[in-house]
Parts: sequence; structure tokens; C-alpha cells
Amino acid sequence: MSEFSRYHFRVKFHDTDAMGVIHHSKHIKYFEEARVEFLREKEMKWHNRSDKPLIFAVVSLATQYLKPARFDEELQVWTQARLQGARIQFQYAIFSELQKSFIALGTTELIALDDKLIPKRLPKDLVQAFKSIDWNENWPPKL
Amino acid sequence: MSEFSRYHFRVKFHDTDAMGVIHHSKHIKYFEEARVEFLREKEMKWHNRSDKPLIFAVVSLATQYLKPARFDEELQVWTQARLQGARIQFQYAIFSELQKSFIALGTTELIALDDKLIPKRLPKDLVQAFKSIDWNENWPPKL
Amino acid sequence: MSEFSRYHFRVKFHDTDAMGVIHHSKHIKYFEEARVEFLREKEMKWHNRSDKPLIFAVVSLATQYLKPARFDEELQVWTQARLQGARIQFQYAIFSELQKSFIALGTTELIALDDKLIPKRLPKDLVQAFKSIDWNENWPPKL
Amino acid sequence: MSEFSRYHFRVKFHDTDAMGVIHHSKHIKYFEEARVEFLREKEMKWHNRSDKPLIFAVVSLATQYLKPARFDEELQVWTQARLQGARIQFQYAIFSELQKSFIALGTTELIALDDKLIPKRLPKDLVQAFKSIDWNENWPPKL
Repeated sequence: MSEFSRYHFRVKFHDTDAMGVIHHSKHIKYFEEARVEFLREKEMKWHNRSDKPLIFAVVSLATQYLKPARFDEELQVWTQARLQGARIQFQYAIFSELQKSFIALGTTELIALDDKLIPKRLPKDLVQAFKSIDWNENWPPKL
Repeated sequence: MSEFSRYHFRVKFHDTDAMGVIHHSKHIKYFEEARVEFLREKEMKWHNRSDKPLIFAVVSLATQYLKPARFDEELQVWTQARLQGARIQFQYAIFSELQKSFIALGTTELIALDDKLIPKRLPKDLVQAFKSIDWNENWPPKL
Repeated sequence: MSEFSRYHFRVKFHDTDAMGVIHHSKHIKYFEEARVEFLREKEMKWHNRSDKPLIFAVVSLATQYLKPARFDEELQVWTQARLQGARIQFQYAIFSELQKSFIALGTTELIALDDKLIPKRLPKDLVQAFKSIDWNENWPPKL
Repeated sequence: MSEFSRYHFRVKFHDTDAMGVIHHSKHIKYFEEARVEFLREKEMKWHNRSDKPLIFAVVSLATQYLKPARFDEELQVWTQARLQGARIQFQYAIFSELQKSFIALGTTELIALDDKLIPKRLPKDLVQAFKSIDWNENWPPKL
């Protein structure tokens, strides 16, 4: 399987703050939405598994805010993922179609938990799936 | 037991939107926070009951927005509650200390659920507690 | 012009609460998103007008919560609008594709403001546009 | 001036997600709230300045999530700040009174902007104020 995924959306009015731009906590929500769409696109069976409940919990997060963006602006979250030991690392770059540039970069690390919030091994099908995905060492990709 | 409760707080920056004022969805969160503090103040055992899990679910909601309010403004949510058949009715009035007036009025109706989200009878101690609280027919109270 | 609009989306994980379902404040955000898409679909020039800034402020809101919905569920917000004197009334019905039923109904009233939050007349092109839209007296529409 | 500040609050129900714990985006809001209370406690004139509008914009953010926390849990955000060139660096540690341990650590870097979102020099009174505050190299402090 190739390539990072691209999740398209518009900035919601309720994502803005009194500075007139996206509030910096909302990027974290965008990353989560992009992660879900990444897993869907890669056909990784993650939630509603028939075997056992699996939860992904965020254990670390880092974000760089490069530019503001405003209500109704069309954005894309570009996302890639790889395994790092027991952790799944996701990298994100939020691209503005209006500004033709990235407005934020981010990374999160996640671990797998069962429904009692106890760490569990990642199921083999998911390990395989993550290993089969390309990882771009130079992030974000050139525009 | 007497009187409505008063829940004090300041408008958070992340509650504002690009109009420079509290986003209209945030009042719903303030009502919820005020409800929790009302139940605490009236010493109603609600969550973490030793008998059985009890969840209050909102089944209807109405809000009137009277005035805008801004970042860091000191607000109070005045709250009263009564039983209406199987429903618990809460009434709210949000008062601005700066503006010396109400900025919003609201009402919510809740029902009791068990942890499978099935409606259940309100426990007797809670029925008694709600019946012992005064209800102000004229709402909001005069300033 | 005919018909209500239909805004499609999935429940985000960050929309859920500890009951495992959509938090009741999130429906208010869905209504806002649906409103924006309604105005876009009907080609109503609303924000970024070349003449003068125009803001729509919510002055009242009512919601009935009919059923819970869960993470990743596919929902639609059906939306219609009409003028009521100086107010614009929107009606919403949130439909779950999984449950084949409505999970919530809502209505909001909005007024037009300038960028100093002073009420202003609705521009003529918008008055015309709202008048040309069908209004369904029986809401929600039959499934 | 001495010491980090401690901002006390309880986890709101609307801060939880379907895992039953605080959603990881909410810690970012707690950091912001703690930042505002830090500036208030240190009597730093920040917003509503008589000279000129001043906005603090977050340019980077990092968080480590150590433990989950649940609805109504009493938390404290411990906060310290210092100047790093043109940036203001804040460090946070979220302490749970129930768990007697830290549940998350964080850091943010902010820059000063005017009301057109153009970078501006930090006013002298604020530079002085930040320089007079102790900075704890070992963070979080020992329990």
C-alpha cells in the first residue's frame, strides 16, 4: 500500500475563536478525524472488531502552528503512520487550499488498549497492515 | 431546602468564536456544569451510587440568547429543578456580573437511565430530594 | 427553489461522551454546520459579502433528543428555513442511516447583525432567496 | 515573585469521551485556562491593556498523557513560564488529587501579536514580569 491519506474538510464556525481564526485545540480534533479516515482508507479493522474490543489511546502529541486559518477555509490533513515498537506513530500536515501552504504540522503516538484501558498487543492483521504502508522520512512532503 | 443554586465561573477563551463572543453551543455546557453543581450543593447522590449506576440523559432543551458575553467575563448560572412526572426539569438563567443582567435563559428535561441506557425509575432518595426543593414560578428571579 | 437540504457526516470520536453516545451539546454544532451548508447549497451570499459584513446570530434554540447515536455512525441533518418577521427560522431533523430513524429534532431563530453586533436589515437578495424556498409545514418529513 | 501557579478545577462531563475518560484534546483547553489564571495571579496586564491590543498566539505545543482521569475528578494544573527569546514558554503538569499523581505534562510556546495578527514586541512591563518569575529546571516538581 502506498502513500499518505488526505482528509478534506472545511473549517467550522464553531472551530474559530475571538482572534477570528481556528482555536489551537481544534487541530487536535482534526488530527483525530484524519486518523480515523486513514484507518478506514487503509481498511484496517480497528473498532467494532469481531474478536475483541480495541481502543487506541493517545500517549503523546506535538503540534507546530505555522499559520492561522479562518471560517469556511478548505483544509486537508495529510496523514502517515508507522509502528515504533509498541507504539503507533502518526504524522500530520494540515494544508490550506486557499493559502497553498501548510498551516500546521503534528505528530501523535498511540498505544492499543482493551476496553478496561489495559495495554494489549496490537492484533496481527493490524501489525501487518501498518508494516505494509510506506513511510515518508521527509515530512511534510514537498508541495 | 431552599433556593436556586448559583454556579460562578469566567468565560474561557476557548468558549469564544470569531464574532468575539461566547459561541451559542457553549451555553449548553454551562447548563450541564451548573446542573452538576446544583446536585452537589443539594447533596443528591447521583453518580457513583453504591446501589446501581444512574445516568441522567437530556431529552429536551431550549435556550434564549439575550446578550453576548466576552472572554474572561464573570458569569453565574442560576439553576432550579423539579420533577415533572418521570422527567426532571431544570431551569437556568445566566447572569453577567459586568452587564448586571441576564445574558441567556434555558431549560432542560432529563430522564434517568441505567448504564445500558434503558429508562429506570428515579431512586426514592432522589425523588424525595427533588420534592423538597422550592420551585420559583417566576423565572428568572427579579434582579 | 425546492426542498430541504441534507448534510451528511459521521459522528466524530470527539463528539462522544462517557455514556458512549453523542454529547447533547454537539447536536447544536451539527445544526450550525447544516445551516452553513444549506446557505451554500441555496447559493445565498452570506459571509464574505462584497457590500458589508453580515453576521447571523442565534437568538433562540430548541432541541428534542429522540435516540442516542454512536461514534462513526452516518448521520444526515435535514434542514429547512423561512423568514419570520425580522428573524430567520431554521428547522432541523437529524437522521441516522443505521437506525433508519430520526435521532433529534431542532429549531433555531437567527437575526442579522453587522460586525459591531448591531441588528441590521437582511439584504434584499437574501430576503428574496429565503422567500423563494419551500417550507414544509409537517416537520420532519415522512420517512 | 516565586513559584508556579496551581489552577484547580473538576473534570466536566462534557470533557469525557466514549472511553469514559477525558478526551485528549481537552488537556489543551486546561492548559489555556491555567495560562490565563497564571497571568492573572502574577498580575500581568495582558488583555484589555490601555495601550494597545495584545494577543498571545500558541506556536507550538507538546503533551504527554500519563494516566486517564474521569468525570468529576479534582485536578490541578501546575504552571510555570519564562521568556525564550521572542517566545514565551509555558510548562504544565496536571495533578490528580484522587490519584495523587500527575496525569499529563505539557509545554506551549507563545508569541505576542497585535490585533491584525502581526507579531509585535512584548511590552516592557511584561518582559520585566516574566523575568522576575522563578523557573524550575526540574519539571514537574517532586510530589
